[in-house]
Amino acid sequence: MTDLYAFGIGLAGTDAAGNVLDCFFPAPLKTPAPELADLIRECFGVGVTTTNAETVTRFIDRCGSAQAPLAALLEGDRPLTSVRLDSDGPIASVPEAYLKLHLLSHRLALPNTQNLDGIFAHLPNVAWTSDGPLAVNDLPTARIRARVSGRPLEVFAVDKFPKMTNYVVPPGVRIADASRVRLGAYLGEGTTVMPEGQINFNAGAIGPSMVEGRISQGVVVGAHSDLGGGCSTMGTLSGGGEIVISIGEHCLIGANGGTGIPLGDRCTIAAGVYITAGTPVLVLDENGNEIGRVRARELAGASDLLFIQNGTNGRIECRTNRKAIALNEQLHAHN
Amino acid sequence: MTDLYAFGIGLAGTDAAGNVLDCFFPAPLKTPAPELADLIRECFGVGVTTTNAETVTRFIDRCGSAQAPLAALLEGDRPLTSVRLDSDGPIASVPEAYLKLHLLSHRLALPNTQNLDGIFAHLPNVAWTSDGPLAVNDLPTARIRARVSGRPLEVFAVDKFPKMTNYVVPPGVRIADASRVRLGAYLGEGTTVMPEGQINFNAGAIGPSMVEGRISQGVVVGAHSDLGGGCSTMGTLSGGGEIVISIGEHCLIGANGGTGIPLGDRCTIAAGVYITAGTPVLVLDENGNEIGRVRARELAGASDLLFIQNGTNGRIECRTNRKAIALNEQLHAHN
Amino acid sequence: MTDLYAFGIGLAGTDAAGNVLDCFFPAPLKTPAPELADLIRECFGVGVTTTNAETVTRFIDRCGSAQAPLAALLEGDRPLTSVRLDSDGPIASVPEAYLKLHLLSHRLALPNTQNLDGIFAHLPNVAWTSDGPLAVNDLPTARIRARVSGRPLEVFAVDKFPKMTNYVVPPGVRIADASRVRLGAYLGEGTTVMPEGQINFNAGAIGPSMVEGRISQGVVVGAHSDLGGGCSTMGTLSGGGEIVISIGEHCLIGANGGTGIPLGDRCTIAAGVYITAGTPVLVLDENGNEIGRVRARELAGASDLLFIQNGTNGRIECRTNRKAIALNEQLHAHN
Repeated sequence: MTDLYAFGIGLAGTDAAGNVLDCFFPAPLKTPAPELADLIRECFGVGVTTTNAETVTRFIDRCGSAQAPLAALLEGDRPLTSVRLDSDGPIASVPEAYLKLHLLSHRLALPNTQNLDGIFAHLPNVAWTSDGPLAVNDLPTARIRARVSGRPLEVFAVDKFPKMTNYVVPPGVRIADASRVRLGAYLGEGTTVMPEGQINFNAGAIGPSMVEGRISQGVVVGAHSDLGGGCSTMGTLSGGGEIVISIGEHCLIGANGGTGIPLGDRCTIAAGVYITAGTPVLVLDENGNEIGRVRARELAGASDLLFIQNGTNGRIECRTNRKAIALNEQLHAHN
Repeated sequence: MTDLYAFGIGLAGTDAAGNVLDCFFPAPLKTPAPELADLIRECFGVGVTTTNAETVTRFIDRCGSAQAPLAALLEGDRPLTSVRLDSDGPIASVPEAYLKLHLLSHRLALPNTQNLDGIFAHLPNVAWTSDGPLAVNDLPTARIRARVSGRPLEVFAVDKFPKMTNYVVPPGVRIADASRVRLGAYLGEGTTVMPEGQINFNAGAIGPSMVEGRISQGVVVGAHSDLGGGCSTMGTLSGGGEIVISIGEHCLIGANGGTGIPLGDRCTIAAGVYITAGTPVLVLDENGNEIGRVRARELAGASDLLFIQNGTNGRIECRTNRKAIALNEQLHAHN
Repeated sequence: MTDLYAFGIGLAGTDAAGNVLDCFFPAPLKTPAPELADLIRECFGVGVTTTNAETVTRFIDRCGSAQAPLAALLEGDRPLTSVRLDSDGPIASVPEAYLKLHLLSHRLALPNTQNLDGIFAHLPNVAWTSDGPLAVNDLPTARIRARVSGRPLEVFAVDKFPKMTNYVVPPGVRIADASRVRLGAYLGEGTTVMPEGQINFNAGAIGPSMVEGRISQGVVVGAHSDLGGGCSTMGTLSGGGEIVISIGEHCLIGANGGTGIPLGDRCTIAAGVYITAGTPVLVLDENGNEIGRVRARELAGASDLLFIQNGTNGRIECRTNRKAIALNEQLHAHN
């Protein structure tokens, strides 16, 4: 038998015309074990199909506790959607896009490991409201109807991507403002996202991590690394160009700082300092002696670096930095 | 006949004492054509008046499809409010303020083209809740009542200005976190506001535009210009003084950068660089030769400029920059 | 009689297993007058106890108008929780933590004046939803149930700290995005928090103040001081180390600027400039003559300072600044 890339049984949201707006998968699977993959192939067709309670019941009974959350899906009489992806091809439908975004947020796939081609083209722009997802074209009428009947209709966002927490909250995380973490964000155990933190889809932190800055699409932050308030990581979609930015372990980007190059382990960028690929940098050894002058891109991925701007002459300097960032244990504790 | 500046039929929210908290206009009009203006003058009194279903029905029947959305307003039995502004005078009531804010967000008026005098004085501070707008003084009792009955009452904001999306979402935009875009923001077709983007009232982007920074009151961003994550534009209400800041077309302000001067077309400010009016700037020609030293305010409104901070000596430099900002087409696509 | 530190009658939120998730105190008291303290000791046991309507009615009748808001608590049949803290000891339970956080947001205690030891250990991580607070472990099932029944369940945050506005909004404030102000924030009269503003627990602004930046845990901003958009104040929990940061009166931190040292009165940090304790600073007198070179920490707490980065040579300079920050009166007005 060939591999099975991913599978999920979900509940789709649709507009009046039947267009799919979103799809919720309570227990998605990635590369299931051969026996389970065989069972999936036996019960469900390839790609996106509408399934029924009988089939899902049979599936749950046979595949055991891992799929137990699905039982609750059967309590309603809504049609269920199954998505079976035999391989990791480009995205061709809304349910497929949502399944791959769920894999990321369920920690089943790391950022940059999935084929997300076509995701912008296939995800519709949706009004995310207190009545659930609405087609953007249906919003004006829905708003008037609600208002006339004295019922509030809150519109939280109008976007292709929903907030993650409405679909899944992986264990051991805190998220102070859920509107800043998109479905498709990867939050490892021990990740705390403060109100100024932000995590895009296909991006994330391995954890533990204190995230008070922005993790752009494609960026991964390693274990025990902290992003200071308002700091920036350049994404490939927005200015970072071809270089995929990653942050190693035990790094710190200070408040309002930023990076346009990937960092290795135990690196620090001082508060307020922004390093772009083209920034000229004076490199100093641990005794403060000049080693050379480079563009920051030549330091990409290196470890044990401290970037500062020298307050006496404005130079961007890179010094050896052997002091690891001590995470505040109390802040990172979760119950 | 004289001109008619603006008109709207709306639904007002009030507190128990009858004070107006907000007013929702589904289909506001600005400088309607003479025939329509005559009809409005025939049907509705000048200023703010309470109108009835009969009058509105007659109006809709006679003015055709443009006002069709109003029909849904008649499905309830709530009193309707008409606001007829014969000229663009100072704001003297809550419905007038809301009508002018609607004109901006409906793309019927550009920022800085309306008389908004008196808006702060007339807009009440309102608790924006999951039960709709509440008078701030009524909030404590409402909160206890809800809590005692086991019903959640979410307080999203306490502010004079509501979020735009609860009143209107103009076509072809995305807004990742609606709490950051106030009613009165102008979002042109193709504007995407990311979670870190923010647009105040009487401010906006002509679009298409990727807005990951803050557009302050009075600031307009031209077509095909992008604001990087966390970047700042100084507003006249908060530090920018008398200069009205505007950003031309095909500009880019890098992440965590900012400007206190207006920019012409095809200008770039590098990530992390903040240009204020008084910043001393070394101007270089396209060959890198020094042209002169100026305060940034002397460069206000000029085009084809690239502002950087030289990493070798901390100087703020302005270089000729002929490379236009290429917007990422995929990111800007809307369905 | 000895003093009584604090007292509150509240309504606790619990999960199905009876674990306390939050506690709402409509009218908390701090160091009540001796007669009231005696009455409290007579009616309520020490620490956290479950109380009944009869006891609370008797208490309200005898203590007069200050506790009138409590009457509404009796309209339901939910059990009430009383918290009587005879002294300001470490936090040992959820209701105690919530009482102390309420004292801050009710302006009964200034930041850094209470013993908050143990607060992280005792506060549970809670899913803050449109159905109210839920235990994080109960969220997956609640989400499926809601979705199956076609009912939206919005998850606003997953955090130990809730947003302040769901518990109290002190008079005379505006908060554009309530998800950025935690319970335990202290907002003095005349404080406006813009969408980019953020205030942590045990932190705040004396007011009046325009807060468009981040007030970290432990930081207090003095009267008539403004925080520009996206500016940063280092907190003791996140990089500020042992120094408690405070901002004096009539200060301004410019947009995207920041400070790692406490500031006295009438200080300004220019937009985009970040001062950390170790920043080397050239000090100039009012005639622009060099006085000396220091590390910024040596200027901690001093008044009448202007910090800039010199655009011609990148030096961080500190100049005497005698021009007070004029708050924009219109912006700060509240009705």
